[in-house]
Amino acid sequence: MVVIMKPDFTAQQLQEAIAAMKAGGVNVMVSKGSETTILGAEGNAANIDQEKLEQLPGVERVMRVSEPYKKANRKYHPDDTCIPLPNGAVIGGNKLAVIAGPCSVESEEQIVGIAKAVQQTGACALRGGAFKPRTSPYSFQGLECEGLELLRRARRETGLPVVTEIMSTEYIDLFQECVDVIQVGARNMQNFDLLKKLGRETDKPILLKRGLSSTIEEWLMSAEYIMAGGNQNVILCERGIRTFETFTRNTLDLSAVLAVKQLSHLPVVVDPSHACGKAWMVERMAMAAVAAGADGLIIEVHNDPKNALCDGAQSITPHQFQDVMDKLSPIARAVGREV
Amino acid sequence: MVVIMKPDFTAQQLQEAIAAMKAGGVNVMVSKGSETTILGAEGNAANIDQEKLEQLPGVERVMRVSEPYKKANRKYHPDDTCIPLPNGAVIGGNKLAVIAGPCSVESEEQIVGIAKAVQQTGACALRGGAFKPRTSPYSFQGLECEGLELLRRARRETGLPVVTEIMSTEYIDLFQECVDVIQVGARNMQNFDLLKKLGRETDKPILLKRGLSSTIEEWLMSAEYIMAGGNQNVILCERGIRTFETFTRNTLDLSAVLAVKQLSHLPVVVDPSHACGKAWMVERMAMAAVAAGADGLIIEVHNDPKNALCDGAQSITPHQFQDVMDKLSPIARAVGREV
Amino acid sequence: MVVIMKPDFTAQQLQEAIAAMKAGGVNVMVSKGSETTILGAEGNAANIDQEKLEQLPGVERVMRVSEPYKKANRKYHPDDTCIPLPNGAVIGGNKLAVIAGPCSVESEEQIVGIAKAVQQTGACALRGGAFKPRTSPYSFQGLECEGLELLRRARRETGLPVVTEIMSTEYIDLFQECVDVIQVGARNMQNFDLLKKLGRETDKPILLKRGLSSTIEEWLMSAEYIMAGGNQNVILCERGIRTFETFTRNTLDLSAVLAVKQLSHLPVVVDPSHACGKAWMVERMAMAAVAAGADGLIIEVHNDPKNALCDGAQSITPHQFQDVMDKLSPIARAVGREV
Amino acid sequence: MVVIMKPDFTAQQLQEAIAAMKAGGVNVMVSKGSETTILGAEGNAANIDQEKLEQLPGVERVMRVSEPYKKANRKYHPDDTCIPLPNGAVIGGNKLAVIAGPCSVESEEQIVGIAKAVQQTGACALRGGAFKPRTSPYSFQGLECEGLELLRRARRETGLPVVTEIMSTEYIDLFQECVDVIQVGARNMQNFDLLKKLGRETDKPILLKRGLSSTIEEWLMSAEYIMAGGNQNVILCERGIRTFETFTRNTLDLSAVLAVKQLSHLPVVVDPSHACGKAWMVERMAMAAVAAGADGLIIEVHNDPKNALCDGAQSITPHQFQDVMDKLSPIARAVGREV
Repeated sequence: MVVIMKPDFTAQQLQEAIAAMKAGGVNVMVSKGSETTILGAEGNAANIDQEKLEQLPGVERVMRVSEPYKKANRKYHPDDTCIPLPNGAVIGGNKLAVIAGPCSVESEEQIVGIAKAVQQTGACALRGGAFKPRTSPYSFQGLECEGLELLRRARRETGLPVVTEIMSTEYIDLFQECVDVIQVGARNMQNFDLLKKLGRETDKPILLKRGLSSTIEEWLMSAEYIMAGGNQNVILCERGIRTFETFTRNTLDLSAVLAVKQLSHLPVVVDPSHACGKAWMVERMAMAAVAAGADGLIIEVHNDPKNALCDGAQSITPHQFQDVMDKLSPIARAVGREV
Repeated sequence: MVVIMKPDFTAQQLQEAIAAMKAGGVNVMVSKGSETTILGAEGNAANIDQEKLEQLPGVERVMRVSEPYKKANRKYHPDDTCIPLPNGAVIGGNKLAVIAGPCSVESEEQIVGIAKAVQQTGACALRGGAFKPRTSPYSFQGLECEGLELLRRARRETGLPVVTEIMSTEYIDLFQECVDVIQVGARNMQNFDLLKKLGRETDKPILLKRGLSSTIEEWLMSAEYIMAGGNQNVILCERGIRTFETFTRNTLDLSAVLAVKQLSHLPVVVDPSHACGKAWMVERMAMAAVAAGADGLIIEVHNDPKNALCDGAQSITPHQFQDVMDKLSPIARAVGREV
Repeated sequence: MVVIMKPDFTAQQLQEAIAAMKAGGVNVMVSKGSETTILGAEGNAANIDQEKLEQLPGVERVMRVSEPYKKANRKYHPDDTCIPLPNGAVIGGNKLAVIAGPCSVESEEQIVGIAKAVQQTGACALRGGAFKPRTSPYSFQGLECEGLELLRRARRETGLPVVTEIMSTEYIDLFQECVDVIQVGARNMQNFDLLKKLGRETDKPILLKRGLSSTIEEWLMSAEYIMAGGNQNVILCERGIRTFETFTRNTLDLSAVLAVKQLSHLPVVVDPSHACGKAWMVERMAMAAVAAGADGLIIEVHNDPKNALCDGAQSITPHQFQDVMDKLSPIARAVGREV
Repeated sequence: MVVIMKPDFTAQQLQEAIAAMKAGGVNVMVSKGSETTILGAEGNAANIDQEKLEQLPGVERVMRVSEPYKKANRKYHPDDTCIPLPNGAVIGGNKLAVIAGPCSVESEEQIVGIAKAVQQTGACALRGGAFKPRTSPYSFQGLECEGLELLRRARRETGLPVVTEIMSTEYIDLFQECVDVIQVGARNMQNFDLLKKLGRETDKPILLKRGLSSTIEEWLMSAEYIMAGGNQNVILCERGIRTFETFTRNTLDLSAVLAVKQLSHLPVVVDPSHACGKAWMVERMAMAAVAAGADGLIIEVHNDPKNALCDGAQSITPHQFQDVMDKLSPIARAVGREV
């Protein structure tokens, strides 16, 4: 951290600024020039109260040099984090991890049928929403607890681990029991109470979706919330960000995959279905995501997209999913991964 | 709602589309031209499943004509909603409602002192955070339950109703008891579980902040979530949206005040402190907000901004708050309001 | 400017970095700690080649402390710039400057009629587009040179100075002759060739609109382009920025008015018509702009909005313009201005 | 186009609306229900004056069904447009077209050296800026006409066609002579005067970069400006859009490649260098772009990035460029392209 003093600072103001930095556990270098005085922090500045420092009367500007996250930071954890699933699959390893399934769980027949189909095609986990965040209170909100039960049956039938979204802290115990990977949706990326409890009360892997208009730093800070609570098993999920473009539902930010792999040791998967909102775009954007370096994908697959209760426009059929998997093979090989 | 059929639709596809519209409770007008066939809904289209309609194979495009919110819609409730507070003040009435107080509750002395000061200057309610949403897990998270207790003491001392933020459904009962207006923060605007329960389990007024990059329609849909649950006492709060501009913390969208007053009957207040993030901007932006038609303001006031535990840079002192109130007078008069 | 060296920099890399800073005409303070080495520039860092510095192998990060604009910077020109018009009006003075007129010049009768009407109501200048930037090549592109001629006639009839948009360097001579204030549109804010020539080849006042998604710094850098060429008569115009909100055409950023008045000495006017795109919003947003501190307004007024060739939806009638002027009076007085 | 009438429209207002539609050359279907009256256009609605229609007093809303561009629209030109270069290369064909070269032309030795290097590695054209759009008037503005001359020499030495940016209409004749592909930069994407003249006064291929925060539709409308003038040789270039993310210079929007290939017949190339602003990201984003379906790439290559006069941080060396080309091979094969 670097602090620039105002041109007319007083000796006392300088002492206040130095004291505020030292309170964060760093040494302070003072560099006095004829016009400018600069204070530099030696050591980990993450505990300095930047906001407070900025409010001191003699301080002109405070500039952070290091990232505000620690546990999620690759600097302090150079090796890739790999997250094993109960069926032996690994998210973050050399093999591309493909999670597939419908937007919403609709019936036993539907979810079990899709689970079998995607398993056969090579998916390593089953996705399916039981609790659905919908913009309108009048839209289908998911089968809720019944949906969790149906996911459990699909898991029993296929052995596929189950990925589903949590929307409230009150269901953590239930998810602990029924679910293998707990998803935090884009709209809850900064639901800090939820993040804290997922850090403290479970060690299940958390699939943390990037917020609708979040920066990469904010996203990693949300991962930090979970990790600071004790749960180190965070999987990041890029699912498109809001831009002015309306042809696609969101704008898939594939450079974020590269950025996150450099800044953090956590695995990152890409959701081309929500990013684009159009089934015909999924195959190509999945290929691009793998080329960019994603550790995995999460793809919406539905047996009957035109009658899906939710997001049918972006769902592909099991047959199309097979095609996607076939197309991913040479791309994965080109970047040194297995499918 | 208007549906455009694809050029090569079949008779069966047309019937499917008509059926899907009728399932939403409307009559359907069919207009067949030589090149284009258009279906128009007669009646309230809010219950038509638009997504499903869009997925039908013969359908080219679905266009909504009416707003997707009903209870928050001025069309169905032409009169302004006015929300009374326990001390007789009203949010949404002819008198400008000014809520003031610190970002965070820090101590009894602090919160009671500020409460007395802002009451004397004409504030109608006291704000103060007990549970604080912070980007970093390592930042001060608020005094939590102790903070609520201190707010209660400030209310007891001054009679000022208390406005504070809720971050989790598990505290609704406690808020029901201690708090007069329950604030939902920008980051929780689409925490649908929280919204649903605030609709069903309390009838306290809810101050609903606009999300960081939300559209007005999404904001009103979040109000609709609360209202659909049964609680009609929603106060909208414009607090700036995220834009590319970084000089200000957010960009205050004052045209949203005008828009919301036309689209909805709900009262709207403006938070110039969070919008700008700079104390020196508060006075002028508060004046502009009143000129634009805001029903009220929510302003951060702190006795000692440079030592505030949170957001000191955007807090004004009680003395400056007095100045702001004085400056607001002629503006309020010019738009037909009392201060 | 502050430079942070990489942890493992070599002595030669340090010398390279110091040399690159000194090449920009500053002294360099070197502050070596056990973990971090910081270089600080003493003096005006505007001529340091920041990009080059960032590419040096030993350099971790370069942080600018001062603004990159000089001539537009209030630090070096504390007094407000006031720009006189030929009719004695002043933009940037104590009196609110209101520019009014149609989006496009359509006919002699139209432009002369509107000019007379707005003059009577207190406008200090006439706006009217002759060259129109349109998203579609198939839309009305303006009367072009004939439009300039009609503006000249309106000026002859009323004495009102004329404000109109230039879209190409080839017309500078013609504008020099016919026009009193040359407008640069939002889409040309970074048409650097145009800016350079308007700096070098004319000293007419330039009304510089903010780009569609420009930051304030970029906007001031565009002013700097004009001023660096020799023309100091720049009027800034806030006209709304692009956000995710679609209810309004753009989002009027009134905090930018405050920001620009602090960062720069240049006058700033607000265009509520283009910002909102809705005639019914103009009055209130004009009032808010004056409350926020704008030096003036530019308002679209058309005798027959529903038949306007361009932007009728955001144009008010001369009669409504009279109302707006009346409503502005008390607001202007409240902020110490005359109307 | 679909027009919804207001609930209380008069017979005369209906006639006005129908007349305004018919004036655009379409037939009008009238669909009267008990509550809603809808007008539908039969035929090409591109010539209807939508704005005027929206201003009619009886009209509630106007909704466009078809795209506003015609010449750039795949609907009317189903076959891919392929643009041949003088050296026999083709942009838009089966072979991936890779354009490479420095941000700026700096000297004969530099540009000729890089040209030879990238030619050997398989580039089909040489890029290099002679006129540089820079945010600051104090930054290096390019060698201008001398730069064009040096590009000509590089072309003479290698036979590589030359791609360079035009910033003003006054240089069109010179570019016509010296340049093979004329680039329009992101900041000039809506410099309509420039677009018009590039349509009318040359038939050289135009490489049209997407604007900083432009939608795909605006981008295609800018292509339409060029094509409406007579020049059909437009190459679209996705170069990243502005988002809230600051880790990358811009956010590369690879779904736009897919979108544009569906909406238009024009070829599209991707510029990973400007999109990311970081040399280490270029390889992976280039691979992702090819996987997504780009017809080509434009990559910044510099012999000595750390001493480049411009954009060194995003430039790769000729040696790294060789690596990129090698890595692209299997990706290109996987999508059915040659490198």
